[in-house]
Amino acid sequence: MSLKQLKVNKSFGGLQKVYSHDSSVLGCTMKFAVYLPPNADSAKLPVIYWLSGLTCTEENFMIKAGAQQYASRHSIILVMPDTSPRGCKIPGEDDSYDFGTGAGFYVDATEEPWKANYNMYSYITEELPALINAEFPADAQRQSIMGHSMGGHGALICYLKNPGKYRSVSAFSPICNPTQCPWGKKAFKGYLGPDEESWKEYDATCLVAKYDGPPTDILIDQGTDDEFLKDQLFPDNLVQACKEAQVPIVLKKRAGYDHSYFYIATFIGEHIEHHAKHLVE
Amino acid sequence: MSLKQLKVNKSFGGLQKVYSHDSSVLGCTMKFAVYLPPNADSAKLPVIYWLSGLTCTEENFMIKAGAQQYASRHSIILVMPDTSPRGCKIPGEDDSYDFGTGAGFYVDATEEPWKANYNMYSYITEELPALINAEFPADAQRQSIMGHSMGGHGALICYLKNPGKYRSVSAFSPICNPTQCPWGKKAFKGYLGPDEESWKEYDATCLVAKYDGPPTDILIDQGTDDEFLKDQLFPDNLVQACKEAQVPIVLKKRAGYDHSYFYIATFIGEHIEHHAKHLVE
Repeated sequence: MSLKQLKVNKSFGGLQKVYSHDSSVLGCTMKFAVYLPPNADSAKLPVIYWLSGLTCTEENFMIKAGAQQYASRHSIILVMPDTSPRGCKIPGEDDSYDFGTGAGFYVDATEEPWKANYNMYSYITEELPALINAEFPADAQRQSIMGHSMGGHGALICYLKNPGKYRSVSAFSPICNPTQCPWGKKAFKGYLGPDEESWKEYDATCLVAKYDGPPTDILIDQGTDDEFLKDQLFPDNLVQACKEAQVPIVLKKRAGYDHSYFYIATFIGEHIEHHAKHLVE
Repeated sequence: MSLKQLKVNKSFGGLQKVYSHDSSVLGCTMKFAVYLPPNADSAKLPVIYWLSGLTCTEENFMIKAGAQQYASRHSIILVMPDTSPRGCKIPGEDDSYDFGTGAGFYVDATEEPWKANYNMYSYITEELPALINAEFPADAQRQSIMGHSMGGHGALICYLKNPGKYRSVSAFSPICNPTQCPWGKKAFKGYLGPDEESWKEYDATCLVAKYDGPPTDILIDQGTDDEFLKDQLFPDNLVQACKEAQVPIVLKKRAGYDHSYFYIATFIGEHIEHHAKHLVE
């Protein structure tokens, strides 16, 4: 798991870096970005994992969200992984924007030919945190997770499937009920096979019904002019499931905002503040 | 000069837009980005022009700098033009990153084959502001200018050559003395010809000696780890010329920062605050 530093830029008093490493659960070389706030060599600091959406790499959030400003202020490390394995030479992996490369969907694949590499769930919840905790001044007891769109789905399932592992979760325009939308159906059928029961293990709206972890307050953010809201995202399904399961959730509807990073940049400060309440004691 | 809207995204309560239009002084279709803060339809607002550096388009600052946050807070319009004419089919215009496309250097060319199109100085100081003032709620009496690298040079010369036209000027890692550095010599020889006297009309360090406009306070920002500081930028030459001409200048040296947009994003808030002091009454 040796790390190779590819980029470093000073940013808001800290360091914005990009690394590559060989991933054993994904069977390929992966990149991730990490932001280390100003005092990152004097203490163990809390960490927020950011999961990006379809077509993204480790760069989109790093460049466009303006999150370093808030991570610097709250002394929080940000970790920004890629969204899928890369260059695995699997036939068809580059054929569409919503399956294969750039579209790992944060599951562990069970189907051929994907199951040898497309294990982003294990990568995000196990392999990457182990690496981060070993190589950076990260406090393994204080981590949270958030993401956007496909990555919002990823953040929600990683949180709900691992009670207590993350202190808090938030998501921008997440795919809330992937077993019911075109993006999710395509991805789950491809990675998990035709048995739709198995899909429910990676669907936040299904998972929340059996959540029995510590008390929580899920934060969901949604632009009302999001071009994918009606056909792909279904936040109301998640809110309804939370209501039935008596799991507290806040859905912030943002009038006139779309699915872009301009929207994320506008509200990322609020989200990091939400996580800081849980992480910084 | 009819405008065509290409993109619109809500951002910090306002609208981040991209337009194209046919430029008569450049003889081609140009794009620019504009940020309209939340109350842009109820009053005439001040404007800051941002000039980008080599290889940039109208997109870099819009996506990477995080400036909308501060423009929103201070109710200032941001205008972000492209860095050169595009697609003029001049032989050689795409041969290098530091001359031709993406490298207009904010001069009015006098040499063939550039002089028909490469008139970025007139575009920035005349044609574009006329368009902005006609089409947006911009207060023509309250405009300022800033930029980065080649665009920092551009901001300084536009300001110094037009006393009173801009309320204030600031620059990140500007090319302060282009007649003396490789980037400037190459560009000026190509656009302005071999007579080096003519080059001085577009060199901030030369221009400041004869500045006789209203009292001013020029703000220059420079990272100490900037990879171009030693060979291309020469901020100390400008500071020395200002001292001799008794023109107030502040040079902020930022320890450990480089030439990137991570650096710009860290300090753009300070710069917009500097301009707001001059623009918002």
